[in-house]
Amino acid sequence: MDKTSSLSINEGKPIRCKAAICRKAGEALVIEEIQVDPPQAYEVRIKILCTSLCHSDVTFWKLDSEPLARFPRILGHEAVGVVESIGENVDGFKQGDVVLPVFHPQCEECKDCKSSKSNWCAKYTDDFLSNTRRYGMSSRFKDSTGQDIHHFIFVSSFSEYTVVDIAHLVKISDEIPVHIAALLACGVSTGVGAAWKVADVEEGSTVAIFGLGAVGLAVAEGARARGAAKIIGVDLNPDKFEIGKPFGITDFINPASIGETKISEVIKEMTEGGVDYSFECIGLTSLMEEAFNSTRTGSGKTVILGMTKDGFPISLGSYELLRGRSICGTLFGGLKPKHDIPMLVDRYLKKELNLNGFITHELGFGEINKAFDLLVEGKSIRCILWMDK
Amino acid sequence: MDKTSSLSINEGKPIRCKAAICRKAGEALVIEEIQVDPPQAYEVRIKILCTSLCHSDVTFWKLDSEPLARFPRILGHEAVGVVESIGENVDGFKQGDVVLPVFHPQCEECKDCKSSKSNWCAKYTDDFLSNTRRYGMSSRFKDSTGQDIHHFIFVSSFSEYTVVDIAHLVKISDEIPVHIAALLACGVSTGVGAAWKVADVEEGSTVAIFGLGAVGLAVAEGARARGAAKIIGVDLNPDKFEIGKPFGITDFINPASIGETKISEVIKEMTEGGVDYSFECIGLTSLMEEAFNSTRTGSGKTVILGMTKDGFPISLGSYELLRGRSICGTLFGGLKPKHDIPMLVDRYLKKELNLNGFITHELGFGEINKAFDLLVEGKSIRCILWMDK
Ligand SMILES: [Zn+2]
Ligand SMILES: [Zn+2]
Ligand SMILES: [Zn+2]
Ligand SMILES: [Zn+2]
Repeated sequence: MDKTSSLSINEGKPIRCKAAICRKAGEALVIEEIQVDPPQAYEVRIKILCTSLCHSDVTFWKLDSEPLARFPRILGHEAVGVVESIGENVDGFKQGDVVLPVFHPQCEECKDCKSSKSNWCAKYTDDFLSNTRRYGMSSRFKDSTGQDIHHFIFVSSFSEYTVVDIAHLVKISDEIPVHIAALLACGVSTGVGAAWKVADVEEGSTVAIFGLGAVGLAVAEGARARGAAKIIGVDLNPDKFEIGKPFGITDFINPASIGETKISEVIKEMTEGGVDYSFECIGLTSLMEEAFNSTRTGSGKTVILGMTKDGFPISLGSYELLRGRSICGTLFGGLKPKHDIPMLVDRYLKKELNLNGFITHELGFGEINKAFDLLVEGKSIRCILWMDK
Repeated sequence: MDKTSSLSINEGKPIRCKAAICRKAGEALVIEEIQVDPPQAYEVRIKILCTSLCHSDVTFWKLDSEPLARFPRILGHEAVGVVESIGENVDGFKQGDVVLPVFHPQCEECKDCKSSKSNWCAKYTDDFLSNTRRYGMSSRFKDSTGQDIHHFIFVSSFSEYTVVDIAHLVKISDEIPVHIAALLACGVSTGVGAAWKVADVEEGSTVAIFGLGAVGLAVAEGARARGAAKIIGVDLNPDKFEIGKPFGITDFINPASIGETKISEVIKEMTEGGVDYSFECIGLTSLMEEAFNSTRTGSGKTVILGMTKDGFPISLGSYELLRGRSICGTLFGGLKPKHDIPMLVDRYLKKELNLNGFITHELGFGEINKAFDLLVEGKSIRCILWMDK
């Protein structure tokens, strides 16, 4: 479709639509009519088809300390949309494209974006304050009183329309059901990427996963797809064993049921000396250390996915390290969004990756506060919110 | 050569020869006549051609606390020899073979020896007390009074003859000069292996090396051979910059000359955000942490080669880890002796690896105490002791 033969009657103009606004930390979101400005240069305005929510939405919803907490705000960062209109200097996207907005940027120009070894864009990462990638605090959202509404990690998908920088946008195949694709914008990609790209789990290997939320289950699914022989889940919720089985969990440890024994000791016992790969998906330094101590001497690899609350240091025995162990951390599973999300879509379409099981609930956008409750209460893995329902 | 048509007139009998005995912690070694018993099953008796010494010899020479300190003892673990006779069940070695005894075992049968991901033999590693690999405290050495002499990490090369288990023996090409080959038994292999096999340093990358002893210089040589663009040496001895240049050191930091600034900050400044690879070759937790903090966000890799005195824990910022950094430790540079030492020999013969510069001194075996002085005083990198001089 040629850019000039626009399908959008709103191109270049503000759009009025509905969004779920977070006006105060921890208070129920309010569906309001807002105004979404046209995209500026390097930006794309997209119509959200469906969105999910992840724990980061809950974290920022509850957060009430500056500078990270900002209100009013439109949260949401796991979604799929269709391009409604594009700004200046936008190559590679056109109206009607199915796209995935992603919080993790990829400028495609910096040293790190050009390196196969990094997914940490040197040009754009580490900014959690700006509303728009290239225009600082300039917002594309206004409420009915004309007040600016804050964006959220460059996505803000709890809105019928949003504006996203091209560094945060991935074009995907329209063959994958959009609600499945939405999963790939954050947690599920992070887990699968950690198993495939960071750890590079191989057939017959042993794996321990600390924390069986969506990310941990996605690590399991990635390990299962690779043919891991034993996948041990560690979670305080005993229901997680059954929940985890379809994702490949073969064994389960409830830390509340092992008395004084350390989790790492139980894992070493179960695996004749330790797992090949361990993953921490919660964000507790004590568990990161246990994950590290759970791996096999000589080759054990630990991947940290969980974010600690305050960047606390973790403490590793230097002899354990010297005995051939490694530990690394990763954001977004080591994936380069524009390259690797289409790869994950492809694996799903080839039925190598089972993603359907992550969706435990589907609701209409108007029921968004119920979706928050389900996640906070641990009842959902992922709840899809359909914008048109 | 057929085993029955033995060239050794001593096969099956004890050999009387000279060895340098350590009788008390820190005291000068004494050259004495000793008796070397014939090899038992899975053992080989070898005539040492030349030996070097490394800091572990000095460490164990000074050590006076049980159980690791044992006297009388024959130290030494960097050497090349020729097979004099073999015990039962010895395949792959015959009289006259040029061999390298190596402290780091490889049974070739356990899960880890069969895995390409580990060089940590699950069957044999982590025993620093036994004299012989398969016979516990049984020793092959007796002094003139008939008293047993302790072995040292299964090598004991400060003797004209020694007995080594086949799990600790590597057959090498006789094309390489033997004093060059001796370097490959410990420190130099550790450094080159860390750069090649553990870090996998690639062309154009940036490297920081903490500690420019033989191991650190070998890391530099490995990185140089791979085409690293910048190799920063960190050492308190300012002479090390000149010493390091032939091994590829391009830049130098003397921690005593940077005031309050952290080494990691200086390195980040020099490399636009951090090096691709950092190596700690000293064994201080504070430097391991600085090495970790010196690497590039998103892809930085830290390799720990130095052994801390008491296995102290090291402390890593969890956010720094989560930002795509990794850290690992390694013993013997991640190399599998029987497979990788011949590979290093091959690279030397192809002139891809420069090893000659590591040898700063050559002495006769009788001057061994002078060789200790040279190493302790930091005057030598490696001093070769020729057994026949
Ligand atoms: Zn970039
Ligand atoms: Zn998320
Ligand atoms: Zn083995
Ligand atoms: Zn050594």
